[in-house]
Amino acid sequence: MTHPPTPHPIANIGEFDLIARLHRVLDSSPRCDVLHGIGDDTAVLGTGDPLWLATVDSQVDGVHFLSPIITPEQLGWRAMAVNLSDIAAMGGQALYALIALLLPPETDVAWLERVYRGVQQAATQYGVAIVGGNISRLPERVVLDVTVIGQVRRTQLLLRAGAQIGDLVLVTGELGAGAAGLLVAREHLDGAGALHTALSASERETLVLRYVRPTPRLPEAAIIAASGSATAMLDVSDGLSSDIGHICQQSGVGVQLDSTALPIAPLTRRAAHAGGRSPLELALAGGDDYELCFTVAAHAAPALIAAVQDATGTPVSIVGEIVPAAHGRSILLDNGQPVALDARGWQHFQG
Amino acid sequence: MTHPPTPHPIANIGEFDLIARLHRVLDSSPRCDVLHGIGDDTAVLGTGDPLWLATVDSQVDGVHFLSPIITPEQLGWRAMAVNLSDIAAMGGQALYALIALLLPPETDVAWLERVYRGVQQAATQYGVAIVGGNISRLPERVVLDVTVIGQVRRTQLLLRAGAQIGDLVLVTGELGAGAAGLLVAREHLDGAGALHTALSASERETLVLRYVRPTPRLPEAAIIAASGSATAMLDVSDGLSSDIGHICQQSGVGVQLDSTALPIAPLTRRAAHAGGRSPLELALAGGDDYELCFTVAAHAAPALIAAVQDATGTPVSIVGEIVPAAHGRSILLDNGQPVALDARGWQHFQG
Repeated sequence: MTHPPTPHPIANIGEFDLIARLHRVLDSSPRCDVLHGIGDDTAVLGTGDPLWLATVDSQVDGVHFLSPIITPEQLGWRAMAVNLSDIAAMGGQALYALIALLLPPETDVAWLERVYRGVQQAATQYGVAIVGGNISRLPERVVLDVTVIGQVRRTQLLLRAGAQIGDLVLVTGELGAGAAGLLVAREHLDGAGALHTALSASERETLVLRYVRPTPRLPEAAIIAASGSATAMLDVSDGLSSDIGHICQQSGVGVQLDSTALPIAPLTRRAAHAGGRSPLELALAGGDDYELCFTVAAHAAPALIAAVQDATGTPVSIVGEIVPAAHGRSILLDNGQPVALDARGWQHFQG
Repeated sequence: MTHPPTPHPIANIGEFDLIARLHRVLDSSPRCDVLHGIGDDTAVLGTGDPLWLATVDSQVDGVHFLSPIITPEQLGWRAMAVNLSDIAAMGGQALYALIALLLPPETDVAWLERVYRGVQQAATQYGVAIVGGNISRLPERVVLDVTVIGQVRRTQLLLRAGAQIGDLVLVTGELGAGAAGLLVAREHLDGAGALHTALSASERETLVLRYVRPTPRLPEAAIIAASGSATAMLDVSDGLSSDIGHICQQSGVGVQLDSTALPIAPLTRRAAHAGGRSPLELALAGGDDYELCFTVAAHAAPALIAAVQDATGTPVSIVGEIVPAAHGRSILLDNGQPVALDARGWQHFQG
């Protein structure tokens, strides 16, 4: 009864459409103890203060990670980090994690212990207790599902909704490095190529690490949330071009980004060029950066940027401005020309 | 790096040994906000009152469910129910669920909507809000990972530890029906056989429903927890023989069960005999019943049994007694002879 010939496979509709269809099946009547359910980075729960946060994310071998280019420790770290990043996106503190493992029976015990060491490294670094889990047999491949539970003070909660016209758009760290790391890793799997020639071994390793072992921006998020001046926030997991669209949609605003202001490191630019991609493409559509993107009133931006940089050493860049919804979503190219910024916007810059 | 030739596959060690090994990799230093972590049905979290509960469980096609014999709605219900049962086992109330879906790209959208309808049916029945989730591609088969978060009042929390010598062992509902349902379903997959001949179509359906659509005992658990007289509790998911062992181990006690007192329905007995299995085997080692097993002082048992039955209509049976650890774990056969009760204890009764 479960797998009839498929008249309408999920592959034919986008992820967001699929989520919207499933959402319609669910009961959407409001509950006072569910401040935000499906539709933000994490659920916001409870009736007290602090509020509770809960999020789940899967790492599937061959889909979200490539087992030949990730160590078991890095895999454990990454499975935790992508969830911790979702807690950071709300301005929250991560507290607990549950790990659901799906494993082929031939999985090596010592390999699995190394995965757990990576899980514990991330947990220790960010103050998270591993409080439960489940182990199930899956014949074909390894999957790690991690649920992270955290807290956020009511006054510090940041959502995708809340951006105001005139706010500046800020991004922590740098963009495109995760995508550049994936380029290097893929080329390595296929054998030596242009990136191998253009970059040194340590440069390649630096980029691959950005892909396999992302840094969740929890300390930065804590400062941004405590400042009281940020108006909206999310983490950049799919690519800035797509993710800033969530803020626009849920805040009812538009955005104009400045391509010359995007924090793209020289190494990422060199990797992009060597790989035949544009640096803008990697920065806007690459995903896997797990940086924070947030909005703040222009007058409050300098102090907030300084506070984050002073406390964490992480640079923060102003990459654009919130505009009226009627102005749409665009990015100024370096010739001063605006181009529509949609999820595929980067294709305009390709080649 | 991740799948070298395997010197020590996880298939060669038991699930509990594997969990113990992974547990040793994790930081076990105590935290005041983690009352119970790995090792009970759910994690017990927080510093306030009520405490928070969190649990995760996976349903893998071909491992935990058989897609040819379960409707999509039943699958959704089952994925929720096994987790709700873990919340019930602590005496808690279920509040929120997150659904991580792993799906082949050819999965039918309408099929998936039906799964979600089953999820929502269970959520509505037990007052749970679906607050988040994740959808990932998995080429080979469907997996549903469900995380349920709940609450329990501090004074009502029930653990596996706490059983006292002289306490009676009680079980809700009946045992062995889930395992009998699996027997019927498996025979149906293989073509008609002895069970098809011995049982009517509606009898077979009754049993299969017990397997595919278990009933989490949340209302019963609420009454047991509120009574203040229960000393330990868990849900029977692996089989009473193995599960009562967890109470014994964590409470530092032994147990003597009475085989003639086990609540095995006549239909389950008939299915067992037709399938060439002993009813005791199905009741003790079958699993999939999701009944509650709990301990209570003998003087308090009658009132508690009456309270559960009056409020929910669910029968409660006295199936044994807690004894000193030195007396071990045993079951009295109907000839009055005690037999050691280990996870394989039922093998003594087979044939």
